[in-house]
Order: sequence, then C-alpha cells, then structure tokens
Amino acid sequence: MKNFSFKVIKNEGNARIGVINTLHGAIETPVFMPVATRGSIKTMSSIEAKELGTQILLGNTYHLYLKPGDEIIAKLGGLHRFMNWTGPILTDSGGYQVFSLSSVNSKKSLAKIKEDGVEFKSYLDGSKHFFSPQKVIEIQINLGSDIMMPLDVCPSANASKFEIAEAVRLTSEWFVESSKIYKKIKRPKGVLFAIVQGGTHKDLRKQSFLDLAKHNPGGFAIGGVANAGESKSKQQKALQATIPLLPKDKPRYLMGVGEPIDILDAVSCGVDMFDCVLPTRVARNGTVFTFNGRLNLNNAKYKLDNKPIDDNCDCVSCQNYSRAYIRHLINVDEILGIRLTTIHNIRFMIRFMDSIRAAIKKDNFDEFKNNFLLKFNQKF
Amino acid sequence: MKNFSFKVIKNEGNARIGVINTLHGAIETPVFMPVATRGSIKTMSSIEAKELGTQILLGNTYHLYLKPGDEIIAKLGGLHRFMNWTGPILTDSGGYQVFSLSSVNSKKSLAKIKEDGVEFKSYLDGSKHFFSPQKVIEIQINLGSDIMMPLDVCPSANASKFEIAEAVRLTSEWFVESSKIYKKIKRPKGVLFAIVQGGTHKDLRKQSFLDLAKHNPGGFAIGGVANAGESKSKQQKALQATIPLLPKDKPRYLMGVGEPIDILDAVSCGVDMFDCVLPTRVARNGTVFTFNGRLNLNNAKYKLDNKPIDDNCDCVSCQNYSRAYIRHLINVDEILGIRLTTIHNIRFMIRFMDSIRAAIKKDNFDEFKNNFLLKFNQKF
Repeated sequence: MKNFSFKVIKNEGNARIGVINTLHGAIETPVFMPVATRGSIKTMSSIEAKELGTQILLGNTYHLYLKPGDEIIAKLGGLHRFMNWTGPILTDSGGYQVFSLSSVNSKKSLAKIKEDGVEFKSYLDGSKHFFSPQKVIEIQINLGSDIMMPLDVCPSANASKFEIAEAVRLTSEWFVESSKIYKKIKRPKGVLFAIVQGGTHKDLRKQSFLDLAKHNPGGFAIGGVANAGESKSKQQKALQATIPLLPKDKPRYLMGVGEPIDILDAVSCGVDMFDCVLPTRVARNGTVFTFNGRLNLNNAKYKLDNKPIDDNCDCVSCQNYSRAYIRHLINVDEILGIRLTTIHNIRFMIRFMDSIRAAIKKDNFDEFKNNFLLKFNQKF
Repeated sequence: MKNFSFKVIKNEGNARIGVINTLHGAIETPVFMPVATRGSIKTMSSIEAKELGTQILLGNTYHLYLKPGDEIIAKLGGLHRFMNWTGPILTDSGGYQVFSLSSVNSKKSLAKIKEDGVEFKSYLDGSKHFFSPQKVIEIQINLGSDIMMPLDVCPSANASKFEIAEAVRLTSEWFVESSKIYKKIKRPKGVLFAIVQGGTHKDLRKQSFLDLAKHNPGGFAIGGVANAGESKSKQQKALQATIPLLPKDKPRYLMGVGEPIDILDAVSCGVDMFDCVLPTRVARNGTVFTFNGRLNLNNAKYKLDNKPIDDNCDCVSCQNYSRAYIRHLINVDEILGIRLTTIHNIRFMIRFMDSIRAAIKKDNFDEFKNNFLLKFNQKF
C-alpha cells in the first residue's frame, strides 16, 4: 500500500479541491485540521471529533515527546491507538513550540540554535532537551504519524532579513538530515513534508524552496506566516512570495492559520491544508462562529436568550442547548460550557471547509467568499 | 395528573424496591441521583447523563438561586428546559450549603440563624442574602422542581445535644411555614418532602419525625447523616434512630451519602434514594470505581496499561480508552481525562444501583452485598 498520494480534482482560479490518501484513509482538501496538542482536542474525545466530521487531527510532537513521551506511546501501539483515532494524523516538528514556549518569560527565545539542532528547556519543568532533525523524525515515527514535519528554524515576527536568511540556511541543512534518516526507516511510515521559510522575502522563499525541492518531499508547508501574526499584509506578502513557487501536484499546508477570513484568502491562493488552535481557544473564552458572524456569549444580552448558538447548525450544542444556558455555564466555570462552544466551533470549521469545497466544485468560490465576508465580519 | 406517588414493589428484609412517579416520569428505587449543582453534572451534558441511564438529577437551590438566579431560569422555562433534561429533578433546600459554604474561612458557620430564616453571605461575592422557608419553596417553584426540600437547620458534626434539639425545633417550625406556602401554590408543582433531623439522638429524631409527619409530606429525608461524616458509627446510629420511625409507604431519602459501601448499609435498612458528589469528585482526582475495587489512575503502574478502566463496563470511556491514556490526560490537565473518569463513575453508580434492585428482586441482596464488599474494599 502506498503511504501517500495527492490528486487535484478541480480548480477555480488558483483555488482547488483535491484528495490526499494516507495510511489511515483519505482526506478531502481544502481541509482544516483540529489540534489535539497533548492527545486530545481540548475538552473533546476522538469519538466526538469523528462525529463532528473531523478528517484529520494534528498532534504536537513537542508536547507528546515531553509527556507521556513518544516511547511510551510507541509501546502502547502508537498515537492512533493511544487516542483511539482511526483517521489520519499529522504531527508537527516541534520547532515552533521549541522557539515560542522557550520564551515565556522573556522577549527573546531561550532556545539555543546550534548547527546540528536546537537545545531547549521543557515548559513543564525546565529540564534541558535537544532536538536534532534526526530526533524529531524518530519521535514522529514512534508516534506513528501519517504526515511528518521536519525540524525547522522559526524566526520571530520581527527578525531581520539576515536572521531569516540564516533560518533558511539551517532549515535547508536540517532537511538534508531529515530526508536521510527518513529514507533509512524500513517500517511502514507516513510521508515527510518540507517547510518553506523566508519571511516576506521573495528571494529567500525561492532559495528555501529550491533547497528543499531537491529531496522531493511529499508536500510543502508554508512556515513563518502565522507568527507574522498581527500584520495581515505581512501574512499576505509571505503567502504570495511562496505559493507561486510550489508544484501544483503536491499539497500545500499553511501552518498555524485558522481564522476563517485568512483561510478564504489562502484557499484562493491555492492552499490545501490548515491547522490552528484559534477556533478552540476562542471557544474557551466564549466566542463562537456562525455563518452570520461571531458571538461572544459572555455578553449580557444572551442572559435570557433561549435560541441555540446557530439555528442552522447540526451540532450537539445547537441541537440541545441555548445561548443563555451556555453563557451561564461559562459564567460559573462549568466545564460543560467550554465543551459546548468547542464542539460548536469545530463543527463550524468542518461545515465551513465543506462549503468551500462545494463552492469550488460549482465554480462559485469567489461568490461564496464575498458573501461570507460580508456577514462574518459582523459581531452580533 | 398526580404530581407524585410511590409504591413498594417488593421487600427483602428491610431492603425494598419501589417506583416513584413524578410529573417528569418514573424512577425505580433504590436510586442514586447524580448532582448537577449549577445546572450540569460536572463536565457532563444532560444528553450524556441520559445515555448513562440516569433516572433523576439533583439541582442545588443555593447555587442556582445565586447564579444565574431562579427568576432567570423561570423566564427561560424552568430548570428542565434550561438544562434540556426531560426526566425528574430533585432540588435541595439550600440549607446545607448555606451552613457549610458560609464557614469556608472559619471553623464556625457564618450563617446567622434567626427565628424566621437564615442570613448568609454568597460564596461568590460575599453579598448578603436571606433564606426563609417560604423563599426556599418559591425558588424551587421557579426552578420547576419535581421533588422539593424544605429549609432546615443543619447542625455541625460536633454539635451538642442542646444545639441539635434547637435545630430540630426550628426545622419543625420552618416546616409549618413551608407546608403553608406549598399548599397555597395553585400551578402544577412537585412534591414536598420533609427532613428529619436529630443527630444520633433517638428522642430528638422521634420528636422531629412526629412534628413533620403531622403535615403529611410526600417523603422523608434523613438529614445530618452525611455531615456526621468521618465517623461511620455515628452515621449508623443516626440512621438506626430514624428509619424505624418512618412510614413504609413513603420514600426515604438519605441526603449526601454516595459511598457504595454506605449505600449498601442504608439500602439494607430500607433507604430508597441517595445523592452525593463523591463519585464525581473522586473521579476528578483520578479515582474510579469497579465491581472489583477502586483504582487510582494517578498510580505510575497504569503508565503502560492498555486495558480499559473496567473490562465489564459498557461506558464510553471503557469502550474506547485505556487506563494509560486517561492517566496521561489527567497528568497533563487535559479536561477529557476527568470527563472520562466522571462518565465511568456515574455509569458505575447506575449499574451498582441496577444490581442492587436486581438482587432484591431475586431475594439475594444479602449475598450480593457480602460479595460486593469482599471485592470493593481492595484497591488495585
């Protein structure tokens, strides 16, 4: 059995629908991948994730390596069995977490980048650890990932061009190592993607892509866009500097982007895969998404509101509970409150991606996008 | 439609099985009532509670009065609609919480008992409130309770006989007021129980019962047993001082007791109803119940244990997840961990009560009890 394939089914402009095949089943793209950082989408079971229509989950290499440990998970039969999730799993490289979680109490990342990897302190207990490109592949093999990411250097949002160039150089060198060890592994294994870095600089993005493409990765991830963060124009620039370089016959994965509006923009550029903690994180603060805009359930006006979050939604929350009830639960810190908003937002993301694919199929993605934007930007 | 009835189906010694009928359906007794303090069994939805076989939920008058407020719940259509729970609901009087939650930072309760009710400070913001017997009934009418409890005085575990006698006197006087206002209410309403106080003193228990019985309450609750707390012999003594007084044709409710071993003892004395936060509280600390004993999943020996909590359990947790996985989730503070243990423990309590009823039906309750005790006291 082939461990990975990708096929574009149809284009509308640069936007496209396609199918990815993995060792654990097929995925229709464009796809949103909910994040199960430590083996669970926060508050949710794998059974519930499946019921909501989740096609593929993302697991965090950094967190699972630290606890319970990738070797423990391997002994227990791998991450799929551990979580009781039979669908595909993508694991990240841990690079982003190594850099971002090491800088909690400091503006500068405390991770030490060396030629052969990165030294960092655990966010849990401060203990020292070292990730090399090889180590990160080994961990993901232990987890039994279907789509693996190589260790990369994630420059900060305000890095200089010199720093970004250095990040590109090391990311390329590490990918040579990642590919080498990946090819050596004999057991059934997932596919290895490459991560294109280079910030908003066209020349660096091109350099990064050319370095990586030599090794024929299964797909390309676009790095350093989510952490461009606050500035939308930077995000756009980074995306536009990268997408035209990428081959049409491989999936394109925009890491860390999950704001519906950003997803629409990226899909129209030709991106196929997304992940982000945003929909679940805002859910835990009481913000829920609908096709008519977003609601903050903490707002006092929902106190006596017997309507569901969204009349048109088929999720357990909307079929059974009112805004007033969920508002109350969040207000008194009852876990069920943030469970119900999380379930709703994940179901929204699934339905949102379903609608995007349906629109591309019918050649009316642009219309769908414009209509969606008109409504979604309102808060009500 | 009659708002309440009770029928004993069969006896085995003093133990008995029966059926309670309420405005929201029938309940087979002996029954365990999971506690949905603030409108949710902690971590769990009403849909899940139903799937687990829950027959009746308990809601806390004190908590719901403070937040979101009983008037808000009334405007939203009552507690059943608010929670989307179509089965029966019992609400407590709030008395126990008034006395116990007012003493958080002090050994003595800060609640001020007056002749016409009790003044207390909110555990949420320190604001002053007053519960009279009338007020407590009005709140429960607003909630739409099927089984209501009257305001009572709950003496502390180490109260003197004089203090307990005073508690009995006021509880009786307050019940006169509770009955008066209860009878005046014209709309469909749940039944009103009475609460027998009197500590471990036979004479005081008798006095309490005689005072209350005059008003012909729908059932009798046995108060002041759970807060006798640590001492099993005190619990036993209080129970044995009360049960022989109670009429056979009315349900008997032992408030705040949920330890399986205590339930067995009480069932053999003839108790029909139980509630307690114990099974859900210990679940959140990683302790789970099985018919072969209890497990603490925090124990390192479960790190590589791919077995479910209980091979013989049909709950979502046991059908899908391993001890090692749940242990990991609790270890890293993932909410799903305590959800899975809560689901299991509630399902255990339901199955435990099912087994008790089945045993009484077959006249082998004593045998069941002895076998259960042999195994349940082991930890493994």
